[in-house]
Amino acid sequence: MDDAMTDDWYAVIPAGGTGSRLWPISRRNKPKFLYDILGQGRTLLQSTYDRLARRMDPDHICVVTGWRHVDEVRRQLPQLPTRNILAEPVQRDSTAAIALAAAVMAKRHGKHIVIGSFAADHVIRGMDAFDEAVEQAVVAARAGYLATIGIAASRPSTAFGYIHEGNSLADELPAASRARKVLRFVEKPDAVTAQSYLSTGEYRWNAGMFMMRVDMLFDFLRSHKPQIATAIEEIADVIVQADDGSQDAAARIDEVMARHWHGIEKIAFDYAVAEPLSLNGGVAVVPGDFGWDDVGDFNSVAALLPSANERNVKIVGNEDDVVLLDSAGDVVVPASGRTVALLGVNDMVVADTPDALLVAPRARSQEVKDMVKVLAQQGRGEVL
Amino acid sequence: MDDAMTDDWYAVIPAGGTGSRLWPISRRNKPKFLYDILGQGRTLLQSTYDRLARRMDPDHICVVTGWRHVDEVRRQLPQLPTRNILAEPVQRDSTAAIALAAAVMAKRHGKHIVIGSFAADHVIRGMDAFDEAVEQAVVAARAGYLATIGIAASRPSTAFGYIHEGNSLADELPAASRARKVLRFVEKPDAVTAQSYLSTGEYRWNAGMFMMRVDMLFDFLRSHKPQIATAIEEIADVIVQADDGSQDAAARIDEVMARHWHGIEKIAFDYAVAEPLSLNGGVAVVPGDFGWDDVGDFNSVAALLPSANERNVKIVGNEDDVVLLDSAGDVVVPASGRTVALLGVNDMVVADTPDALLVAPRARSQEVKDMVKVLAQQGRGEVL
Repeated sequence: MDDAMTDDWYAVIPAGGTGSRLWPISRRNKPKFLYDILGQGRTLLQSTYDRLARRMDPDHICVVTGWRHVDEVRRQLPQLPTRNILAEPVQRDSTAAIALAAAVMAKRHGKHIVIGSFAADHVIRGMDAFDEAVEQAVVAARAGYLATIGIAASRPSTAFGYIHEGNSLADELPAASRARKVLRFVEKPDAVTAQSYLSTGEYRWNAGMFMMRVDMLFDFLRSHKPQIATAIEEIADVIVQADDGSQDAAARIDEVMARHWHGIEKIAFDYAVAEPLSLNGGVAVVPGDFGWDDVGDFNSVAALLPSANERNVKIVGNEDDVVLLDSAGDVVVPASGRTVALLGVNDMVVADTPDALLVAPRARSQEVKDMVKVLAQQGRGEVL
Repeated sequence: MDDAMTDDWYAVIPAGGTGSRLWPISRRNKPKFLYDILGQGRTLLQSTYDRLARRMDPDHICVVTGWRHVDEVRRQLPQLPTRNILAEPVQRDSTAAIALAAAVMAKRHGKHIVIGSFAADHVIRGMDAFDEAVEQAVVAARAGYLATIGIAASRPSTAFGYIHEGNSLADELPAASRARKVLRFVEKPDAVTAQSYLSTGEYRWNAGMFMMRVDMLFDFLRSHKPQIATAIEEIADVIVQADDGSQDAAARIDEVMARHWHGIEKIAFDYAVAEPLSLNGGVAVVPGDFGWDDVGDFNSVAALLPSANERNVKIVGNEDDVVLLDSAGDVVVPASGRTVALLGVNDMVVADTPDALLVAPRARSQEVKDMVKVLAQQGRGEVL
């Protein structure tokens, strides 16, 4: 990666979402990206930041998160300039978050910059492959494409969306020789459809990583989502004006946010920008040959962890707190310091935190969010 | 029950055993009899005491327990005279415990008294039926029998021993018209054998309740277990001498206990006394038409509790701490104050205490003691 490239590209880490399928580890007030779920010594957010900071100045990285998490984000990322942590009064999905960061960075650094979006709660293994894919994606973005990274689909997952690849862009973009046009984005498929995708060899997982020139992003938003574009630009203006550190800067940001943010359409970047652009051949995909997971539920956590024993039990935390007798295939989270004793327990999730315990079959990991809904309905906000 | 009868009969509550199949509720330092496992407002020990104290002066009741539990027993049974709590330096099974209480009571109240033994951790429902059975058993005991109470076998349980009933003793003992001779005691049977017992109508569960004249008990022990008889009598002498409250009384008791107790044979009353006596026609059984269970494991606890919901979930503790989604047939012990959330969990035990959690299928309730062994082997004494 040459210096010229790093100069004009920036990254936003949208750190929203409560990760309710990982309750009781993930909480409203401390979502999963703030945890070291895989026991690597760094939280998911820190790992995301680390991946970017290897090749990028900290001032090029921006985190958009809920206002309740700002202090913790600051604590976890002390190198990140404070002005690069943007606080949402309420979640407005990824289009608003990415557009806000894009607008702020462009107003600070110039409108031709490329912005890349990298979710705070993904796990990636294989740094060199990641860097290579990002580098080619940035080349494609600089050339005017919305560039995404398509993950090698290692199994017919029904939990992810897919990207259908078209022709190579190698001739058009020699510096992004592996880039291809995107024919279309497809929703999470059923198992049979997922299998058929894999057998064609033309589909990759959509990891929601997008790189795009900010001027092109706002050209698109102004014509297709004008309300979002107008509100975001107004907010970004105030945020950047506040860079001078004047006494009432924070108050002015709060005021403009309170006025506009709530009214912004809540829509994912995939639907608002990526899919419409793909219909006109405006999206490129670069293959990502690295390990990737979105750490969406306990099954996903299990897949990312080495087994604690020969019976395929996965432990998120201190193995010394877990005592197993004739138990196999479980995901155990000993997060309360207590002894967790499993006798004859197979293929279950047992997640033990200081104020709440979850027990469920691994096969029902996706339904943990339903349990969270029940807890909310019952007014048990203190454990959400 | 007339006054003459109550004057000459006494009761011992052997409160030993750790109840390891009920771990982590039941602990070495606080065994199950010290808990209100069924949420009745009284512990198992208190309920046992209450049953006896309805018809008996507190000074007629004696508890034999481990020295670590003496303070808690005293706290739970403030009406019980302190001198009637006998502390074991180490467990020596029921023969030693019953014989010690019998000897102490006889030295205080006269050798012709009848002593009855009632385990501290049994649950009984139907007080009048209990009183009636005990009354007839005392009549039989006073006449020279070892009298026991045979529980109506409501199912072919393989967890209990059985009593094979012989001829009626109604002619011999008009005041114990329902008493019968015991043909033999039989061990816990397999399921087929248990079913065959039930079909004969001649078998009842052995609840380990025994009533006997103390003079006859010691006559038997002196000839069949002389070492036990000698040691117990020596200890009992010192305990009763200490009734004067002299300054070194406690020291003298400790000294005689330290000298003799450890060497006493560790053997259940059933094997040492009841079975041998039954071979010579010396045992009578009175039918007990009351609900009974020994609260041996979590399945047993479940059988004794009303369902928390229409899906047959049993909750030992505060139902508000448990959140169920699509779960049935579980036994849940929310004993830590935390929220216990079960999603799609069927027929499991989830026992949640402040320092230890157990998860196991209900079908493996008996094996919880194996988990306790594993914990001990791993040196986790702090949770045992």
